[in-house]
Amino acid sequence: MIQTYINPPRKDWSEIVRRPQFDNEGLFGTAGIILQDVLNRGDKAVREYAEKFDNVQLSELLVSEDEKAESAKFVSKELKMAIYTAKANIEKFHAAQKHNIQKIKTADGVVCWQKQVAIEKVGLYVPAGTAPLFSTVLMLALPAKIAGCREVILCSPAGKDGKIHPAVIFAATVAGVDKIFKTGGAQAIGAMAYGTESIPKVYKIFGPGNQYVTAAKQIVSMKDVAIDMPAGPSEVEVIADETAIPAFVAADLLSQAEHGADSQAILVATSLPIADAVKKEIEIQLSVLPRKEIASKALLNSRIIVLPSSDIVDFTNLYAPEHLIIETQNYNETAEKIINAGSIFLGNFTPESAGDYASGTNHTLPTNGHARAYSGVNLDSFMKKITFQEISKRGISQLGQTICVMAANENLTAHENAVKLRMKNR
Amino acid sequence: MIQTYINPPRKDWSEIVRRPQFDNEGLFGTAGIILQDVLNRGDKAVREYAEKFDNVQLSELLVSEDEKAESAKFVSKELKMAIYTAKANIEKFHAAQKHNIQKIKTADGVVCWQKQVAIEKVGLYVPAGTAPLFSTVLMLALPAKIAGCREVILCSPAGKDGKIHPAVIFAATVAGVDKIFKTGGAQAIGAMAYGTESIPKVYKIFGPGNQYVTAAKQIVSMKDVAIDMPAGPSEVEVIADETAIPAFVAADLLSQAEHGADSQAILVATSLPIADAVKKEIEIQLSVLPRKEIASKALLNSRIIVLPSSDIVDFTNLYAPEHLIIETQNYNETAEKIINAGSIFLGNFTPESAGDYASGTNHTLPTNGHARAYSGVNLDSFMKKITFQEISKRGISQLGQTICVMAANENLTAHENAVKLRMKNR
Repeated sequence: MIQTYINPPRKDWSEIVRRPQFDNEGLFGTAGIILQDVLNRGDKAVREYAEKFDNVQLSELLVSEDEKAESAKFVSKELKMAIYTAKANIEKFHAAQKHNIQKIKTADGVVCWQKQVAIEKVGLYVPAGTAPLFSTVLMLALPAKIAGCREVILCSPAGKDGKIHPAVIFAATVAGVDKIFKTGGAQAIGAMAYGTESIPKVYKIFGPGNQYVTAAKQIVSMKDVAIDMPAGPSEVEVIADETAIPAFVAADLLSQAEHGADSQAILVATSLPIADAVKKEIEIQLSVLPRKEIASKALLNSRIIVLPSSDIVDFTNLYAPEHLIIETQNYNETAEKIINAGSIFLGNFTPESAGDYASGTNHTLPTNGHARAYSGVNLDSFMKKITFQEISKRGISQLGQTICVMAANENLTAHENAVKLRMKNR
Repeated sequence: MIQTYINPPRKDWSEIVRRPQFDNEGLFGTAGIILQDVLNRGDKAVREYAEKFDNVQLSELLVSEDEKAESAKFVSKELKMAIYTAKANIEKFHAAQKHNIQKIKTADGVVCWQKQVAIEKVGLYVPAGTAPLFSTVLMLALPAKIAGCREVILCSPAGKDGKIHPAVIFAATVAGVDKIFKTGGAQAIGAMAYGTESIPKVYKIFGPGNQYVTAAKQIVSMKDVAIDMPAGPSEVEVIADETAIPAFVAADLLSQAEHGADSQAILVATSLPIADAVKKEIEIQLSVLPRKEIASKALLNSRIIVLPSSDIVDFTNLYAPEHLIIETQNYNETAEKIINAGSIFLGNFTPESAGDYASGTNHTLPTNGHARAYSGVNLDSFMKKITFQEISKRGISQLGQTICVMAANENLTAHENAVKLRMKNR
């Protein structure tokens, strides 16, 4: 089942942290053709692909107010309450990420500042599939609304019944999404990137999806719109020492493994007995799991590594996990030294599930080692920063000489002129 | 020369704000071959391309300490002083962009926070060409060092004499760049994305370049490394009313035009007499400009638009200029309403040249309308945010129900288990 490495030498680490290969280059051709078709034929192309890929004939792409009201009836009171609680926590955490404008006097008469401004139009993609991802709706739509995006649209494929899952529609409505469209796959990405008769063009596209969606997002990000981040299969690393509770650790690894056959779960244990205890718990818990087939496949990509405590930080920073759960006595000390990770869960009572759903942090996180350079989705993802500067007559007369010397040395005479004319005029 | 539009109707605006087309898709093939070759053959490939494209045989790619010391001798005292002044201002502005950690109690027993962490390894690309871009060195290297990046490397092509311009080496040394390599073009991007014997692999690549460099950055950003932003020709919009000084406005437009034949300068004037006065000044100033040939070509892509004040904000937000200079009486009022721009310069005494070199703001900004979704380079560009959460026994027992309901509704039983086991254990 899951492979175990005991004190592997450093030279082997890069092999151990290798992700299951995920090559979507072959799909670029197909995704590109679909995108071009949506660009050329708009709604007509979108509808045809829905018929072809999803076996559904759609008259209207836009979800109507009636459909929204109807959906709410099919969501249990219990789930509604849970969605409201999660919403409150996610809002509290993301609202705290706003920054005030701070004007900086960089030199005499020279004042500079940054202003955060919401991206005007954003598009959210929420896949269908084995489960209705209403949690992803909350994770994307709530920060967009807090940022102040003026137009927040959502695309999600309709089932054969011509409907989007009611929990997805309910979550989108509660989160304040402006328009919901029944559109999935690469054609949804094309519609949001270029605009169609029904679906407005946006400036940034967010959300997970299958390999065609991922390929389409990469293609449109080359020149048309921004995207949240490169996508890949989900992954977790758990660090456990003798204070960890093996049943918890096993449950955390399995909750990653059940996501998909291409998921990866890594256990870093400080001793072999801990590793063995967790392994035993995995077997027990796996046997009764409804998604055990998926989870078993994911465990084939997974690893248990026994390492001395002194090596764990370096190993983890090399792996750069999307999720990192630290179930050790000195978890704060270890966490302080982690520089590459998407989201970190501290101590025995902080499961990844909490962050996946309801603690308030975002669950859209960098996979596949991208945590080395990317942040997870956060309020900033829905905003950009504009810089401002205001210089007085006195300011330009003092700073002018510096600018002129630099411009002259870069052979840019007009740049110099723009300053010299103003210096004369003081 | 420069085309003038008087009160064009809104339906024509999207045509007026069109950028000169800049299609590098044809170069993807060539750039891809060079990248693959660098991936396979490392330094050997890098050296061969230097010989082929730059006519230079290089024994060492790394700039030695001796070369650095030598370079400093060839930089005038005046330029050194200017570089030090610009450095101080850029550092002051970017250092103020650090945020403190703020722990948020999102629910009882649930504490979440964000931590900014520097990207460990970054690579800066600085093109050669008609001018030594030491200003770009400062704009990229100083924020990288303030962010705390552990390894900051810089690649720039060597001239036929086998040397990088001394001012570039001097600025890099002053800014604290760790290693400087004589490598240019797509091969430099490949070297930084994959690593070679001499050049270390980095996690994010920054900086401008020709169309091959741009294509190479786009290719490697698909799965290997992050990049700063999509690149395109530089552009400025100036808004002028009757309080603007035509000579200043003309100088600002020309300082954009002299950048390159593909640059674009847009004047939005509140009346025809203002537009005419600026036009006259452009002719006068252009005639004596050393780079007048380049600037004249750029003016062919440029526009003068006369618009009523009430339309100017909408027009500007549609254009989404990289640089916006507002030379009007109520510049603050207009600036407040701008949502799409890279950097904004306020009032008659704030030329773009100031931000290009020395006021403290960054000059690496989103072009080609990308200001709709992208920020310019800033301290955040060199950092990512890791989220943390710590939940107490009491916290999970209270939030647990919400998580379990959501997980069950997404058919993720192992996610539910990870919480239930902990709730039992309280």
